[in-house]
Amino acid sequence: MRTMAVDSFVPMLESLSAILDKGAASAKTTKLDLVNARLAPDMFTLAQQVQLACDHAKNAVSRLMGREPWPEDNHEKSLEDLRDRIAKTVEYLKAAEVAAFNDAEDRDCSIPLPNNKVITMNGLQFLRAWALPHFYFHVVTAYDILRHNQVVIGKQDYLSQVGDFVRFRQ
Amino acid sequence: MRTMAVDSFVPMLESLSAILDKGAASAKTTKLDLVNARLAPDMFTLAQQVQLACDHAKNAVSRLMGREPWPEDNHEKSLEDLRDRIAKTVEYLKAAEVAAFNDAEDRDCSIPLPNNKVITMNGLQFLRAWALPHFYFHVVTAYDILRHNQVVIGKQDYLSQVGDFVRFRQ
Repeated sequence: MRTMAVDSFVPMLESLSAILDKGAASAKTTKLDLVNARLAPDMFTLAQQVQLACDHAKNAVSRLMGREPWPEDNHEKSLEDLRDRIAKTVEYLKAAEVAAFNDAEDRDCSIPLPNNKVITMNGLQFLRAWALPHFYFHVVTAYDILRHNQVVIGKQDYLSQVGDFVRFRQ
Repeated sequence: MRTMAVDSFVPMLESLSAILDKGAASAKTTKLDLVNARLAPDMFTLAQQVQLACDHAKNAVSRLMGREPWPEDNHEKSLEDLRDRIAKTVEYLKAAEVAAFNDAEDRDCSIPLPNNKVITMNGLQFLRAWALPHFYFHVVTAYDILRHNQVVIGKQDYLSQVGDFVRFRQ
């Protein structure tokens, strides 16, 4: 459970941070306001996508460890601020102790809803059907916003973690 | 491993199929060519995003079971064709036998590269750092293409599987 959570979130957030760097370099030429860019008038902005990706990662790891996540204040106004938000999130994720995930698969991770309803999930269901789909939604949409706004990035930026697995054939 | 693979892919593909239905209904009014829509001139079209989402799901499950995936011919020309491709993929995924995943975590799932290189991954690494990020990339980008082209969809369409977990509070 720890590897499917922490080791999914951390490399993707590190890729996202490097992608924001490429966005910052690109915006010097294009003069586009990437932080407030979005793909449809009623979709979230790049800033909100990054904030939500960080929140879903942090909240998932907190809840899988049986801890209540604390709210963030979403003050970020620049690509540099967003990179700092990612760095802070990654630091928290990396510090998650292995032992805290011992009962994570069966831990109650239900989510209260209005009108006396509740999303009833154990840790495995919560990670698979809530945290990972939400997290990837916001990471990929951030990527798509940048790609749509002329930032030159590709699959190797999105999947930069794969570089760690490349070897010369024996 | 089977639940993190099959139970990730199947509900997301079923959501994607329902989202394509909403796209088809929307295109009757907007007259937009959704099948060939894309977010940047050098990105893949909606059709290619759906084909690749199906391929990554099918290939991942095949390889985790120790079987060689077969290539598809990507003949789809309409939203209806793409829905059929998804249905065929879901049928294959659902039929994956539980016992075939017994050694999936440690199974060699390496990916050959040009120039005598190889991406060296066991099943767990392959699912976490290759199959799931690729799969979600194409599902979310398909969603983003439709959203960018005036199709009225939201998080409840993307995450329709969560409905199965909703209960009244005891």
